Amino acid sequence: MNGADALLSTLVANDVTACFANPGTSEMQFVAALDRQPQMRPVLCLFEGVATGAADGYGRMADKPACTLLHLGPGYGNGVANLHNARRAFTPIVNVIGDHATYHRQYDAPLNSDIATLVKPNSLWAQSAESPDDVPALAAEAVAASYGPPGGPVSLILPADSAWLQTAAAPVIAQRAVRPAPAEAAVGAAATALRKAAKPVVLIGGQACRAEGLAQAARLAAHGVRVISDTFVARQARGAGHFAPARMQYFGEMALQDLDGVDLMVLVGTVTPVAFFAYPDRPSVLVPDGCEVLDFVGRAEDAVAGLSALADALGAPAQGPVQPLKRPDAAPTGALTPQSAGQSVARHLPEGAIICDDSVTSGGGIAVPAMTAAPHEVLALTGGAIGIGLPLAVGAAVAAPDRKVLSLNGDGAGMYTVQALWTIARENLDVTAVVFANNTYRILNIEMTRTGAGQAGPSASKLLDLGDPNIDWVSLAKGLGVPAVRCTTAEEFETAFAAAMAQRGPMFIEAAIR
Amino acid sequence: MNGADALLSTLVANDVTACFANPGTSEMQFVAALDRQPQMRPVLCLFEGVATGAADGYGRMADKPACTLLHLGPGYGNGVANLHNARRAFTPIVNVIGDHATYHRQYDAPLNSDIATLVKPNSLWAQSAESPDDVPALAAEAVAASYGPPGGPVSLILPADSAWLQTAAAPVIAQRAVRPAPAEAAVGAAATALRKAAKPVVLIGGQACRAEGLAQAARLAAHGVRVISDTFVARQARGAGHFAPARMQYFGEMALQDLDGVDLMVLVGTVTPVAFFAYPDRPSVLVPDGCEVLDFVGRAEDAVAGLSALADALGAPAQGPVQPLKRPDAAPTGALTPQSAGQSVARHLPEGAIICDDSVTSGGGIAVPAMTAAPHEVLALTGGAIGIGLPLAVGAAVAAPDRKVLSLNGDGAGMYTVQALWTIARENLDVTAVVFANNTYRILNIEMTRTGAGQAGPSASKLLDLGDPNIDWVSLAKGLGVPAVRCTTAEEFETAFAAAMAQRGPMFIEAAIR
Repeated sequence: MNGADALLSTLVANDVTACFANPGTSEMQFVAALDRQPQMRPVLCLFEGVATGAADGYGRMADKPACTLLHLGPGYGNGVANLHNARRAFTPIVNVIGDHATYHRQYDAPLNSDIATLVKPNSLWAQSAESPDDVPALAAEAVAASYGPPGGPVSLILPADSAWLQTAAAPVIAQRAVRPAPAEAAVGAAATALRKAAKPVVLIGGQACRAEGLAQAARLAAHGVRVISDTFVARQARGAGHFAPARMQYFGEMALQDLDGVDLMVLVGTVTPVAFFAYPDRPSVLVPDGCEVLDFVGRAEDAVAGLSALADALGAPAQGPVQPLKRPDAAPTGALTPQSAGQSVARHLPEGAIICDDSVTSGGGIAVPAMTAAPHEVLALTGGAIGIGLPLAVGAAVAAPDRKVLSLNGDGAGMYTVQALWTIARENLDVTAVVFANNTYRILNIEMTRTGAGQAGPSASKLLDLGDPNIDWVSLAKGLGVPAVRCTTAEEFETAFAAAMAQRGPMFIEAAIR
Repeated sequence: MNGADALLSTLVANDVTACFANPGTSEMQFVAALDRQPQMRPVLCLFEGVATGAADGYGRMADKPACTLLHLGPGYGNGVANLHNARRAFTPIVNVIGDHATYHRQYDAPLNSDIATLVKPNSLWAQSAESPDDVPALAAEAVAASYGPPGGPVSLILPADSAWLQTAAAPVIAQRAVRPAPAEAAVGAAATALRKAAKPVVLIGGQACRAEGLAQAARLAAHGVRVISDTFVARQARGAGHFAPARMQYFGEMALQDLDGVDLMVLVGTVTPVAFFAYPDRPSVLVPDGCEVLDFVGRAEDAVAGLSALADALGAPAQGPVQPLKRPDAAPTGALTPQSAGQSVARHLPEGAIICDDSVTSGGGIAVPAMTAAPHEVLALTGGAIGIGLPLAVGAAVAAPDRKVLSLNGDGAGMYTVQALWTIARENLDVTAVVFANNTYRILNIEMTRTGAGQAGPSASKLLDLGDPNIDWVSLAKGLGVPAVRCTTAEEFETAFAAAMAQRGPMFIEAAIR
């Protein structure tokens, strides 16, 4: 076999079975080898930012890495923003980046660039396979590194000759590290601190926000301990039957107001909360003055075991509060707003749905009613780089083909990686994509004032406004092969959304909101 | 003034007057400052790859840098591929990359990343302004560095507090280096070598392919010296009245066949030619065995002066051959192919047009008849990262508002940065965009065989094929605000293209080619 075969063999042997790809000439051996390795599912993305975002969605849902296939430095570059998000979500991803043949690099051909440097900021691990014989061992290292814990994207550079030359190297199985449970002493210390504190909170993130983590966190809540979650969580269970922690507020001063008087913050699967951005004369660290921060369970540790042990130590009940199923009885009417759309979502969202959320300022309107909707999971924008909502949906739908995927997007965010719609069509994925079209970067209109920059004049307004011309999202979606409808009232959205939830396959809804 | 004002003042003082932007919260001070600096034209791009490609097109046509405005590491990341192309085109670009406030970085907020490392591979110069007082001097350094020679993208990181804090620092004027002419001795040596050689060629690139360089190169041709150009040139004059050098063939074996027997290669404004990709058992360096390579005029030197002095030293005529104006008399008929489309282009292309070429396998059909079309210029894909044809057109049209811009794109390439169409519509740019829709990455079908990877089977075919579903380009373009028409015959293309050339403003043509 050649090096490309060897790579695919090791990937498949390690249960890496999905490849989100946009290949070029230097990746042709890998592409050809796919025909000899039917266990790997190739998914073409028309832009690499779709491929990396899809790998993130896949990894979050499958709890194992997909691979990407990217064309040298520029192909990787196109995927950087969603790899940044994946790094912040701790999602395992194995990037396979084709490179020039090892002997060809010295000639600095047009596509040559310093890939090793480019991948550094968003790779937990990065190596180049300089010989086909190195491929299996490095691929196994890559898979292992991607798992962490807590995991994240890794980059395996595959020079063209390492792909086309023959090798006898056998597949290598990755050795995975396990998440250790926190030590008994740490559990005892946390329990003691919680007992002593006048107004403690437990801040949970990452793994603690999965269903099993929330179930343990709910026990703390039942014991009278306030539990809040990170603002943006990679994968969070929500809706009926799940415990619903309060969420850290996005804006720092609101977060601190919410935490006023708190004297102990116990961290589980997360770190000390900080403001998303700095603003003149506003705090960076979102911990009240005088509040002790206790780093109980780190991101690399077993948050579920930690929460369970802590609840036991405190003598908390075996079960805590969960959300009731409380769908809005009445269909919303009148103006279409994020809030009215949220009513429709809560009414019709099927059990087990996966929401991929890149809806920015429209998100709050959905989140509140969804808390008593049918049980579902939410994949949030963990790294702040918009353009993830449609790609995440591609990956989530590939990973969980029996679950409805709902992609919620701002219009600014949706345009970043609109190419994802084509892959949704081609793969016939069970994805309903919603774009909330307000024809502006609304968040920036808010942020402009907050940063002290004042009101936008004519030049500034040109950079915040998405109108002139308004984007015709229905035309875009249809152009990419996805059936689409525009809704301008709550009634229209209700009808379209209900229909989309009741059927399988791709559907696009432009929500023209006020 | 604050640091953002100081930055804009220095940029404008150095004649940087266009800003291709997609800002976020950390860039709000810069955005607000635009209202106080009307000499800077802000152009919103809905994706950063459009902004960087537009800055490339602008720089190639204006011979001065535009600035970009990018949102931290992920925003820059989205622009990497077209900055790679700009680096390979030696286009001056000043990237302004917003960052977290200096004191906020330590908290590793969600959008934090190692920008300094990320920018390295595609920045000739990179610095962060850690204080507003540093801004003017660093901005001037950035502008100067972008000019080179030979020039390229630079990166100025602007932390949010360096933008919002006050400064009294005055604007700084950049000191620009000049391109030195080659020394007399070098001219003499080149002339001597050319006289002695049995079968010499002069290979020209970069500045030597502008109109004034070609005029001097033509004198060498008139003297009996064969002149060829690089395969991909940042900005090349073409058509009636211009000398038309042969082009280095893209595929290495064809290039070497063309150069068979050549015993001297004199380089002017370029470097030793190498194959775009390596292939098993094919050469990397495209110089025949035994051929001497003479590095006469480097990329940082004055190629026009060098060619002129060499022509003088050889006693070449004062003028060389130029292309006649020879538009095809008859409108093409029958099947729509790149060749028939090329006939229409040659018939109707107006004088002074700018062609932005990302047409990959369809390009040859246009290039041949265009050689005797009205005089125009061609901006080619210098770095091999597809997705530049539409962004380049945005920038070229902003830089040269009185000239018709024609953007030629493969369908695979066009999808990469399709968001550019919206900016073309918003700015009402005089751009006709053509996408050659063959519903496949045709180049990869060719390359697959060449790399020895064999024929594509079912899995591989999925990654090469753009059909299933076919993209409806007319729907896409209209959705982004650009009038659009689909052509399926040569007659339809002729009619649509003639109409587009006869009017001003945005127009999109889907060329459904065989």
